[in-house]
Amino acid sequence: MKMSKFQQVEQDFLEHVKKMSAYSEAIGLIHWDLRTGAPKNGVEQRSEVLGMLSSEVFALSTSDKMEEFIQILSSPEAEAEISEITKKSVAECKKEFERNKKIPAAEYKEYVILRSKSESAWETAKEASDFASFQPYLEKLVDFNKKFIGYWGYEGNKYNTLLDDFEPGVTVEVLDKVFAQLRSNIVPLVQAIADSPNKPKTDFLYQPFPKDKQRDFSLAVLKELGYDFNSGRLDETVHPFATGLNPGDVRVTTKYDEADFRSAVFGTIHECGHALYEQNVSKDLIGTPLCGGTSMGIHESQSLFYENFVGRSFPFWKKNYDLFKQYAEGQFNDVSLEEFYLAINESKPSLIRIEADELTYPLHVMVRYEIEKGLFNDEIEVKDLPEIWNNKMEEYLGVRPENDAQGVLQDVHWSGGAFGYFPSYALGYMYAAQIKEAMLKDLPNFDQLVEEGNLMAVREWLTEKVHRHGRMKKPLEILQDVTGEGLNAQYLVEYLQKKYNAIYNLG
Amino acid sequence: MKMSKFQQVEQDFLEHVKKMSAYSEAIGLIHWDLRTGAPKNGVEQRSEVLGMLSSEVFALSTSDKMEEFIQILSSPEAEAEISEITKKSVAECKKEFERNKKIPAAEYKEYVILRSKSESAWETAKEASDFASFQPYLEKLVDFNKKFIGYWGYEGNKYNTLLDDFEPGVTVEVLDKVFAQLRSNIVPLVQAIADSPNKPKTDFLYQPFPKDKQRDFSLAVLKELGYDFNSGRLDETVHPFATGLNPGDVRVTTKYDEADFRSAVFGTIHECGHALYEQNVSKDLIGTPLCGGTSMGIHESQSLFYENFVGRSFPFWKKNYDLFKQYAEGQFNDVSLEEFYLAINESKPSLIRIEADELTYPLHVMVRYEIEKGLFNDEIEVKDLPEIWNNKMEEYLGVRPENDAQGVLQDVHWSGGAFGYFPSYALGYMYAAQIKEAMLKDLPNFDQLVEEGNLMAVREWLTEKVHRHGRMKKPLEILQDVTGEGLNAQYLVEYLQKKYNAIYNLG
Repeated sequence: MKMSKFQQVEQDFLEHVKKMSAYSEAIGLIHWDLRTGAPKNGVEQRSEVLGMLSSEVFALSTSDKMEEFIQILSSPEAEAEISEITKKSVAECKKEFERNKKIPAAEYKEYVILRSKSESAWETAKEASDFASFQPYLEKLVDFNKKFIGYWGYEGNKYNTLLDDFEPGVTVEVLDKVFAQLRSNIVPLVQAIADSPNKPKTDFLYQPFPKDKQRDFSLAVLKELGYDFNSGRLDETVHPFATGLNPGDVRVTTKYDEADFRSAVFGTIHECGHALYEQNVSKDLIGTPLCGGTSMGIHESQSLFYENFVGRSFPFWKKNYDLFKQYAEGQFNDVSLEEFYLAINESKPSLIRIEADELTYPLHVMVRYEIEKGLFNDEIEVKDLPEIWNNKMEEYLGVRPENDAQGVLQDVHWSGGAFGYFPSYALGYMYAAQIKEAMLKDLPNFDQLVEEGNLMAVREWLTEKVHRHGRMKKPLEILQDVTGEGLNAQYLVEYLQKKYNAIYNLG
Repeated sequence: MKMSKFQQVEQDFLEHVKKMSAYSEAIGLIHWDLRTGAPKNGVEQRSEVLGMLSSEVFALSTSDKMEEFIQILSSPEAEAEISEITKKSVAECKKEFERNKKIPAAEYKEYVILRSKSESAWETAKEASDFASFQPYLEKLVDFNKKFIGYWGYEGNKYNTLLDDFEPGVTVEVLDKVFAQLRSNIVPLVQAIADSPNKPKTDFLYQPFPKDKQRDFSLAVLKELGYDFNSGRLDETVHPFATGLNPGDVRVTTKYDEADFRSAVFGTIHECGHALYEQNVSKDLIGTPLCGGTSMGIHESQSLFYENFVGRSFPFWKKNYDLFKQYAEGQFNDVSLEEFYLAINESKPSLIRIEADELTYPLHVMVRYEIEKGLFNDEIEVKDLPEIWNNKMEEYLGVRPENDAQGVLQDVHWSGGAFGYFPSYALGYMYAAQIKEAMLKDLPNFDQLVEEGNLMAVREWLTEKVHRHGRMKKPLEILQDVTGEGLNAQYLVEYLQKKYNAIYNLG
C-alpha cells in the first residue's frame, strides 16, 4: 500500500523523535551512573560526553527538519491522517521548539554557562552560609528568566510563563486561591499541635539500624508496593531519586542513615511512587516525547500518594511493623505499633523543607512560591531575599533561620535556573489527596488492602487512571478525568485535619 | 595569531573525533551497565539506543567530512604542520575509513544482522551441543569474511588481512614460526608432567569461600597491584571483563564462585592488568582514537603479565597468603604456603580454553589458529569443523571432546564474526614473557618487590614503557622499543620450562 505524503512525513518524524529519545535515554543512564558510584576521576570527561549528547538532542529539537515536521504535521489535513500519538508528540515538540527558538542562540549558551557556574557558586555559598557570594549569580539568573518571559510572552501574570513549564494550566490565579485555603487551615492546625500537651515519644527513632538491614527492608517494601524488579533496581545515593530510562528500566535510589531509618524507608517509598508511574506508562509511547510522567505535579502526586497516604498510614504499619522489627534486629521490640505510628507522624515546624513533616511541608512550598512570584513581578529584589525568607518562615511556620544555609540557600533549584518548580510539590500533594478520594469510590476497602499488603489493585487503578497515559493527557486533564473536578485543596485540608486531630488528640 | 588552513582543518578534525569518542564512551557505559545488572525488561529498548549511537559513530567514521579530513591532513604539507597526535589519529581514522568504505553499505548491514542472529543461534546450539544447527550461520559468516578479504586485499596469505585487524604487523609467516616453536617445547613438557609421579594435592581448592569475603580479598589485591579506585570500580558479572571508558573511569568486573575462589581471584588480577593499561594511557590522548590499548595482543600481555607472572608466582603468595587465609575464614589453615602454590599451578590438559592452566593454554589457541588459517585458505570446510577440532585437541593436548559444547562450540568469538582474534591471546602471553625479561634489567629485584607487595615500581615501569603511549605506537613498535627485539617465543618457553620443571620436579 502506498503511503500518503503525510504518512511518509509522520514516519520520518517518528524516526526523528526516536533518535532524540534514544539519546535522552543514554543521557539518563549517564546521570544515574554519576550519582550511584561513577569513579570521580572520570567525571570531567563524562561531562563532555553529556554535553555532546545534550547538544545533539537540543539540535534535533530545534532543527530545520523539526520545524518542517511541525509545520506539515500541525495542519488540519495532516491531523486527519496521522495517529493520535503522533499528533500529541508533534504538539510536545512544537511547544519545546517555540520555547527554544525564541531565545537567541548566543544568549542561551551564555545562560547554560551561567547555570553551571551558579551551581558551584551556590554550593560554596551554602557551605559558608554566605548569601552575598551567591547574590550576583542569582540576580543574573533572575534577569535571564525575565528576558525569557519577554521572549515567550505571558498571560495574566509574568510568573505564569515559568509555572507553565512545570505544570501546564496552573496559574498564579489558581495557586493564590488554593494556597490561601491551605494556609488558613494548616496554620491553625500547626498552632493547635504546638499548644497541645500530647506529644508523641520519638527518641527510639534514632536507634541504630544497620544499613544492609535497611536495604533488605526497603527491598521488601518495594516488592509489596508492586515495584517490578525486572524493570528496575535499587541503589544507594546521596540524594534519593527515581529515573525512568524506559518503561522497562526505571531505577530507584535511596540513602541509608544508620541513626535514622526514616530517610531510607520513606525515601524509598517516595521514589517508588515516582517509579511506578514510569514503569507503567504504555509501551505504545516508547520512543516518543510522550513516554513519561505528564508533569512535575502529577509525578509528585504519585510519590506523595505512596509516601504519605500509604507509607505513613496506620494500616501500612499494621501490616509491616513485625517485619520491620525483625530487620531492625530487636531494636524496636519494646515499642508498640501505636507508639511507632505516632512517632513517624510527629509534626513540628522546622527550617528545612526536605526534612519537613507532611503537615508543615506545604508551608515551606508557599514561602518559595510567594518569593518567586514577587521576584518576577518586580516586587522583590534578590538582595532582600534572606530577610524576606526569614520573615516569611516566621510568619508561616513560627521558626526563624539563624543563617542563610538553613534559610534561603537550602535548596539547589534556583541555582539551576528552576523557577516555577516549587509549587509542583504542593500541587502534587493536593492532587494526591484528590486522587485518593476518587480511588475510594472504586476501592472502598483501600485501608483493608493496605493492611493486607495487597497493593496490586491500587497500582492497577493508578495505572489505568494515570500512569499508562504518559503525556497523552495534560495534568489538569488527568485530574478532571480521574476526579471529575478541577484542583480542589479541600481534600488535602480534610485529610490533614482528620489525621492530625487524631494523632494529637485535638478533639 | 591567525591559524593556517591546515591548523583550522586539524581543529575541526579533532572536534570530529572527539564527538566519535564521546559517543563511544556512552556506548561503553551502556555495555558495562547491561553486563552488571541492567533490568532485563529494559534491554530491548536499550539495544535500540546502542544501535542508534553505533550507527552515528559509524556514520561519522565514514562520512564525506571524514574523507575530506583524511585527504587534507595526510598530505606531506599538512603533516609538517599538524601535531604528532593528530597525525597518528588521522592514520587510525584512515585505516578504519578504508576498511569500512570498501564494503558496500547494504552488504555490511546484512552482515550486522547476520552476526546478531548468529550469536543467538550459537547460544542455542551450544546449549543443545548441536553444531549442525549453527553450521549454516558459521558458513555465511566465513563467506562474508572471505568477501571482505576480497574487498580489502591481502599480502602473502588471505588470513593476514583478518589478523591485521587485531594485531597489525603480525602475519601467518610470523605465527607459524612462533607457534611451531611453542608447540615443540610445550607438548613434551605436558607429556612429562602427565608421566610424572609428582602430583600436587588440589582437593582443598574447592572449599567454600563466601562471596563477600572473596570480594574483600579481590579489592585488597587490586589495591596492592596499583589499581586506582578513584578511576575505577569493581563489580560482579557472569563473564569478567575490564572496560576503559576514559582513563579516569576504567572498570573491572569479576565472577565469584563460592566453591572455587580461583575464578574470582585470578579473574580479578587478569582484568586488573587490562585496567592498569587503560588507566595509565596519557591524558593527552583523551578524545582521540589513540586513547586506549594499542592492540588485543599488547592488551593481553598486560593482563597475563599480572595474572601469571605476578598473581601465580610464589613471591606474590608469600606476601598475600596470610591475608588470603584470613578472608577465607580458616578454611585454608591446614594448607601450607608451598602446598597452596603447587595447587594453584597444577597443569592438566583439559577441554575448555578459558579454564586451561597457563602451560596448556597456548595449545588451545593454536588449535583455533590452525582452523581459522585453514578456513580462509579454503583448506578446511565449515561442515568438517567438529571432527577437525576434536582431532587437533587430541593431537595437541591428548584429550578429545565428547560433544560439540565442549569442543568447537565452546567460544563465542566466531558467532560474532571475530576471526583472527584468537592468536592475540597467545601473542599477549609471549609479549608478557619478553616484557618481563626486559623489566628485570631495570628492576632486578622484581621478586623481592612482589614479595613486599611493593608493586608501584612495576606499574610505573609498565606505564612508562607501554601504557602511556596508547595507540601512539603499533604493537610491534612497543615490543621493539621495550625489549630491543621482535617477537621471540623463547622467553615464554624458558619461563614455562623453568616453572614447571620445578613444580613437577622434572629435574
